[in-house]
Amino acid sequence: MEQISGFSRLSKGQKIHWLCKQMNLDLSKLLDQYKFDPSVQKILDEFTENSISNFPLPYSIAPNFLIDEKIYCVPMVIEESSVVAAASHGAKFWMTRGGFTTQILGTTKRGHLHFFYRDDFSKLNLAFEEIKPKLLDSLKPLISNMEKRGGGIKSIKLLDRTDEAPHFYQWEFDFETCDAMGANFINSVLEFCAQYLKDHLKNNFDFDIILSILTNYTPQSVVEVTAQCRMSELGSVDGCSAMEFAERMLAASQIAQVDISRAVTHNKGIMNGVDAVVMATGNDYRAVEASAHAFAARSGKYQGLSKVILEEDKFIFQMQLPLALGTVGGITGLHPLTKLSLQILKNPNAKELMSIVASVGLAQNFSAMRSLVTTGIQKGHMKMHLLNILQQLGANEKQIIAAKQYFKDRVVSFQSVREFLL
Amino acid sequence: MEQISGFSRLSKGQKIHWLCKQMNLDLSKLLDQYKFDPSVQKILDEFTENSISNFPLPYSIAPNFLIDEKIYCVPMVIEESSVVAAASHGAKFWMTRGGFTTQILGTTKRGHLHFFYRDDFSKLNLAFEEIKPKLLDSLKPLISNMEKRGGGIKSIKLLDRTDEAPHFYQWEFDFETCDAMGANFINSVLEFCAQYLKDHLKNNFDFDIILSILTNYTPQSVVEVTAQCRMSELGSVDGCSAMEFAERMLAASQIAQVDISRAVTHNKGIMNGVDAVVMATGNDYRAVEASAHAFAARSGKYQGLSKVILEEDKFIFQMQLPLALGTVGGITGLHPLTKLSLQILKNPNAKELMSIVASVGLAQNFSAMRSLVTTGIQKGHMKMHLLNILQQLGANEKQIIAAKQYFKDRVVSFQSVREFLL
Repeated sequence: MEQISGFSRLSKGQKIHWLCKQMNLDLSKLLDQYKFDPSVQKILDEFTENSISNFPLPYSIAPNFLIDEKIYCVPMVIEESSVVAAASHGAKFWMTRGGFTTQILGTTKRGHLHFFYRDDFSKLNLAFEEIKPKLLDSLKPLISNMEKRGGGIKSIKLLDRTDEAPHFYQWEFDFETCDAMGANFINSVLEFCAQYLKDHLKNNFDFDIILSILTNYTPQSVVEVTAQCRMSELGSVDGCSAMEFAERMLAASQIAQVDISRAVTHNKGIMNGVDAVVMATGNDYRAVEASAHAFAARSGKYQGLSKVILEEDKFIFQMQLPLALGTVGGITGLHPLTKLSLQILKNPNAKELMSIVASVGLAQNFSAMRSLVTTGIQKGHMKMHLLNILQQLGANEKQIIAAKQYFKDRVVSFQSVREFLL
Repeated sequence: MEQISGFSRLSKGQKIHWLCKQMNLDLSKLLDQYKFDPSVQKILDEFTENSISNFPLPYSIAPNFLIDEKIYCVPMVIEESSVVAAASHGAKFWMTRGGFTTQILGTTKRGHLHFFYRDDFSKLNLAFEEIKPKLLDSLKPLISNMEKRGGGIKSIKLLDRTDEAPHFYQWEFDFETCDAMGANFINSVLEFCAQYLKDHLKNNFDFDIILSILTNYTPQSVVEVTAQCRMSELGSVDGCSAMEFAERMLAASQIAQVDISRAVTHNKGIMNGVDAVVMATGNDYRAVEASAHAFAARSGKYQGLSKVILEEDKFIFQMQLPLALGTVGGITGLHPLTKLSLQILKNPNAKELMSIVASVGLAQNFSAMRSLVTTGIQKGHMKMHLLNILQQLGANEKQIIAAKQYFKDRVVSFQSVREFLL
């Protein structure tokens, strides 16, 4: 590859042309296969920079989710096999056992002006409290629309963090952003405030604002989701009696509390379900991931996010998950299929979407744990994996049927399938 | 929505028909817009379950990455605006300053049989050591292909974890999986071993294997990436002198070390770049996310993954990132565009892909920090955001040009753009 200047200013066609020249390959036929009608393509091309094509992921649905007494069919976007199947199985299992119930524990988002200051803290605090009403007044044009919707700035605090780093302080802003995820709103407000404080306090106070930015860590925006039933209602599960199944689930849950190796994969399974819905609804899975995993480490030890609790004759499966989601703004209303996703979910508000996303995460986790503590995960997974390998090796219909039969009780690997096809 | 039984066994058309009936809407016209040629569609439909359509994300490229003395153009799949631009800017900045250099610190993957045992540990350990050669012999058909490629099982240890949970032990397996991410291989081996140990030791030892599974936590599979130059080479950056810029970057880096709110968003920015390449190459971003964030919390405090170091006259920007990636297996060789991605990257092996992915993460992080400590992020971000809002409101070409001009020095919000268009 060669270095190139001014690449971003080239047209899409010119970018593809440059790439083809670099690779000494004609990619136009391949890329044409992924082109949509210009009306759709125009929207997709505006999302981000240097787009040369569309990268398709399967758009799937998982029916039978009973969440807070409503039935949902949940759209999921994910490339990994078995995830949608596991979510659907988890949903179906709980459908007849009361479904998922949720509680929103908070919806507060947060942002900071991180700054250094080498003088008397109390004086700065005083000056800040004095100027605050004027600052809030100046902010009005920026936040009036959010306030009309019931949101806005909930509090501003000056925090002394000099214990952790010399001269380090924060102006901490708490926000309610209603049905928006709020990143743009929060960052706009914070950058405005940083400029305002520089303009109005800097003459008398020598602070240095290093960063003005929201945090994706949202332990104040959390949903709790619970699936529970009487032990007897569990029935026999994959060859385990109800009691045996419950105890094995409890053991698996405890292992995820004490062992980081297990906790990470336990939570990865939860996020398989969470991210698939986050993506289908046009939300930002990196933000959700970062918050969830940092939350999993909040005790000082990284732990599983969900827990099994056996209480008298009850089996309880529960999780608290921090989530900052939007049902307006960002690409939620822009990507034609994220709009469809919200429609399929009956146009939920942000809180309802939190409940749905967390429920899918818990369903996913339940199915994965269920397989792990009973039959193992490879049996089901390998069935899907076999199909993928057969596709990859270009097997025909007849070969696929024969392979499915042959590999019913044999180990699936790329090698073994290739040998079978020879 | 209604409950439904046997949904997964319906054909794709029947699934869509059921959904349309539930929504009382005809979706066929919408979904047809996202349909590809049957030859392509067939492949995509096999990835996962209950697929009813394709969900397109922009497929973008970021040129000018100098990594270990080779120039790369990096494919990125991401819905968030500004990410590809930031990666490209970061790449370009470092291109003329020595680029990114990387070092693979390890490639070991790990898995466990997690089990409970209530008797004498040393006796079990002895029996296990005795049976191990036979176990390894029985494993041969499963691992011979991986061994031919230079991989396989590196070690098996029996670990006493009873400090953390009563009667809790692990058989810990270390693996080398070469150019495969290895999840299927590892899980197949572990489930085989679990069955083998049950068959051969269970008569004399009353252990209870709860889970047999790989861990996505990979602190033994880590790449270190560094970008460094002489302080004077930084030049003036966005109005800051080299020294001022370096010190502000150092301060931002230190804040991400001490403050979790900042650390989470700092790392989220890294993962914006990381995940975009992970997805473009058909790897599993949930696995990568889980490992990275747990690794960020390994000290007991969740911290930023990258660090600025000022050393004599040098500016050093460095990160260690755990990564388990594959360039064979999974959907890497199956999705036509992941194959293209690997081609664009000159068909790297797994180690080279680790280096590329980590470099994009660091470039991304550099650009975000650079904006944050100088001009703020909203200026650039809002330019993209404005375009998205204009699209959403159906603005025509003339309105778009006028809006771009008008919002050059005004605050962009959905409300303000709507008002401008009225």
